[in-house]
Amino acid sequence: MRVSNIGEATCSVARALGAIGDAWTLLILRELFLGQHRFEEFQAQTGMAPYLLSRRLAKLLAQGIVARTPYRQRPTRYEYRLTEKGLDLHAVVVSLARWGDRWEAGPAGAPLTLIHKACGQETSPVLSCSACGRPVGPRDLRARIGPAMQAERAVNRERFRGKTRRKSSALPTENPGAPTS
Amino acid sequence: MRVSNIGEATCSVARALGAIGDAWTLLILRELFLGQHRFEEFQAQTGMAPYLLSRRLAKLLAQGIVARTPYRQRPTRYEYRLTEKGLDLHAVVVSLARWGDRWEAGPAGAPLTLIHKACGQETSPVLSCSACGRPVGPRDLRARIGPAMQAERAVNRERFRGKTRRKSSALPTENPGAPTS
Repeated sequence: MRVSNIGEATCSVARALGAIGDAWTLLILRELFLGQHRFEEFQAQTGMAPYLLSRRLAKLLAQGIVARTPYRQRPTRYEYRLTEKGLDLHAVVVSLARWGDRWEAGPAGAPLTLIHKACGQETSPVLSCSACGRPVGPRDLRARIGPAMQAERAVNRERFRGKTRRKSSALPTENPGAPTS
Repeated sequence: MRVSNIGEATCSVARALGAIGDAWTLLILRELFLGQHRFEEFQAQTGMAPYLLSRRLAKLLAQGIVARTPYRQRPTRYEYRLTEKGLDLHAVVVSLARWGDRWEAGPAGAPLTLIHKACGQETSPVLSCSACGRPVGPRDLRARIGPAMQAERAVNRERFRGKTRRKSSALPTENPGAPTS
């Protein structure tokens, strides 16, 4: 598989990564969730070169994650806003930020606090079960892989075994730099 | 900013992306959450070249997201497991998968179902408020940006304005290919 066709896999994680699996794209989404809408502000806050930013925005537009409306003519300038599909990435961006707060923040702590408008309290949103409402962590879920994904995974495994059999070295190189005997 | 020093920003999203903001890395994490532990299985299921996979795993090890233990000697082969820091990425990976299910899945629908072990039901986990427990969506939260991040954003804005003032063209090129008058 190549990164360019990652979105064609059966797995939803892979498909999602085909759409937004890029650090720059996620920084643009961060800006949109922070309420920024203009090219210049994205550029200032992400430090992206205009060409790269244009390309990422064009991809987000093509995927229906972002929509744009002109706010000035001659030359035309656009405001960018999240569509419903884009807004639905909220849980991804918030979870990423909360993980960053917990594991990567410096001694200053979380750079940003979230307030739940309805209850008025500071919140650090957690994932919870859509059926019973209780919080769910990594040890609380079981994955039931459907037939299409099971078939794809079996094919991947077979193809990989075929590849390694054809090579003279039976095992793939796990640590290219490490001594192997 | 360059992608290589994205992790040095104040923002937690940027810092998190410094650690895992790469499509391949997220596919490795997906495999780990699906219960896979071995190099060969990661290779088969992601289609990554051994060299790239080794590099991504080395980075995950260095960041303490993954730990490894040998399961065979001569040559040494390792099993990889998520640490607590790695397990804490659960909400990111699950939210990404659920978004992919909703917006990128083909006509076959979600390739994988999640069961909440405690309640026994199929679940599509949602983000909820850590204070009051109610589900929180993109319109339910307000961000209060702390002083460090506010200062950084002001500097970014100033630096960007300085840059554009020095250039002969006052405005950045939003659409390099588009006519400008």
